[in-house]
Amino acid sequence: MENIKDFNDLTQQLEQRGVHKRVAVVCPNDESTIWALDKVRRQSFIDPILVDNDDPRKAAREAISLVRQGKADILMKGLIGTDVLLHEILDREEGILVEGELLTHITAAAIPTYDKLLFFTDAAVIPRPTQEQRVIQVRYLVELCHGFGIEVPRVALIHASEKVDERHFPYTAGYQAIKEMARQGQFGRCIVDGPLDVKTACNKHAMDVKRIVSPIKGQADALVFPDIEAANAFYKALTLFCGATTAGILRGASVPVVLPSRGDSPETKFNSIALACVL
Amino acid sequence: MENIKDFNDLTQQLEQRGVHKRVAVVCPNDESTIWALDKVRRQSFIDPILVDNDDPRKAAREAISLVRQGKADILMKGLIGTDVLLHEILDREEGILVEGELLTHITAAAIPTYDKLLFFTDAAVIPRPTQEQRVIQVRYLVELCHGFGIEVPRVALIHASEKVDERHFPYTAGYQAIKEMARQGQFGRCIVDGPLDVKTACNKHAMDVKRIVSPIKGQADALVFPDIEAANAFYKALTLFCGATTAGILRGASVPVVLPSRGDSPETKFNSIALACVL
Repeated sequence: MENIKDFNDLTQQLEQRGVHKRVAVVCPNDESTIWALDKVRRQSFIDPILVDNDDPRKAAREAISLVRQGKADILMKGLIGTDVLLHEILDREEGILVEGELLTHITAAAIPTYDKLLFFTDAAVIPRPTQEQRVIQVRYLVELCHGFGIEVPRVALIHASEKVDERHFPYTAGYQAIKEMARQGQFGRCIVDGPLDVKTACNKHAMDVKRIVSPIKGQADALVFPDIEAANAFYKALTLFCGATTAGILRGASVPVVLPSRGDSPETKFNSIALACVL
Repeated sequence: MENIKDFNDLTQQLEQRGVHKRVAVVCPNDESTIWALDKVRRQSFIDPILVDNDDPRKAAREAISLVRQGKADILMKGLIGTDVLLHEILDREEGILVEGELLTHITAAAIPTYDKLLFFTDAAVIPRPTQEQRVIQVRYLVELCHGFGIEVPRVALIHASEKVDERHFPYTAGYQAIKEMARQGQFGRCIVDGPLDVKTACNKHAMDVKRIVSPIKGQADALVFPDIEAANAFYKALTLFCGATTAGILRGASVPVVLPSRGDSPETKFNSIALACVL
């Protein structure tokens, strides 16, 4: 796959590649999901399967059962509580969580003032990742970037500054270990560096002014945030104030899960389905 | 003072009010500080006092001594390490920290896509505020908003969602207590609500879509972030991707402290001095 530049490019390339994915949508009854599905139907690469029931829990179980039977490639949340759907996904007997994996959220953002897509994790699910969880998050980001045709993605481990501070910010010490894993090739081809702040990670001039030398070179493809509050504040700033369009998926289940939040636009929902088709 | 709308308005109103403040600048030797001071000299309301020394520590001590003698109203950092200056400010014998106060950072941001100035804390100094420290931060924000002529400032206590979650996010329980203090008038006239996410705090439509009822009404004047990572990620997104101009000051010392970071523009430094003149 060629390097995918933005969300339009994404849908075009999915069509050209002849991708075909079946999306099981749980309770597709809210307006923006209906809009997104309408757009979906005009694309050859997505085949929606509507799973409705007066009892949302039953609808969730039915959709998950389709995934377990190999009849759906992507799971999507409609008008159902996130808690309810997650509970069914995580069910030990009938759910679709994969052992050794982590249910964690990735956002892809098209920011008008940044010259490429920016991927980041986790603005929505894992409150405060442990070191082990963060390692999995880095793996997912790198995999997704590879799926977008980025051969050597640059992944920045984010902190408020570029300093390792074991006392106040123990996770910054963990960043060192993750960089070492990356150097040893544990994540495949990629460049991982940190701690870096958002500005240094995404702006070469800011990096130079601060006299920081980083192989990210101010051109990060992906950001790993220390916790959900930081990632969420970043996400909300981008979408509310910067005119960014986004897409989001959950990794860690046997198939990608599209789990929009109530405030997401129909466009975001459509982009999220397309994002899930890359995996 | 009338309601101040943006940074231009700020400098105009300071001039009109006949404000006159003496700013002691420690090691004013970097380009952007020199630029900012050049602009300062053309304003009637600021009188810079340059305090230089080959030994930055001595320069810091001298400037702080001027503050202690009542000969300077504002302290500003030039080409000197933040650690060095803070160490002298915090010195128990010769410093200027006020007992019972908290050295904490406030940013004021002019965001092209938001219809008023947005104040927030703390993107730079306090890693993870305790409940007691957060109460002080709210007090500082309300005071600053009052200084800007905002009679009843709306202060949002930020989290990734609007849910109180004592188990994963103990500080959200603390938010309840702060709201109660606000209701009892402890901070003067203001409206405090939370937990709210950035989008709900700053956008009425997003608030309505999520069916949240908050007296902030999507029109926050000020945001209190849970920790430095969240505030810093927000700050960097605004300045890097949203074209925001900002100003920042430290509260908690006997005078406001202007403590720019290396990456700050000369304009930010000038705005920060003006911001300090409000207090």
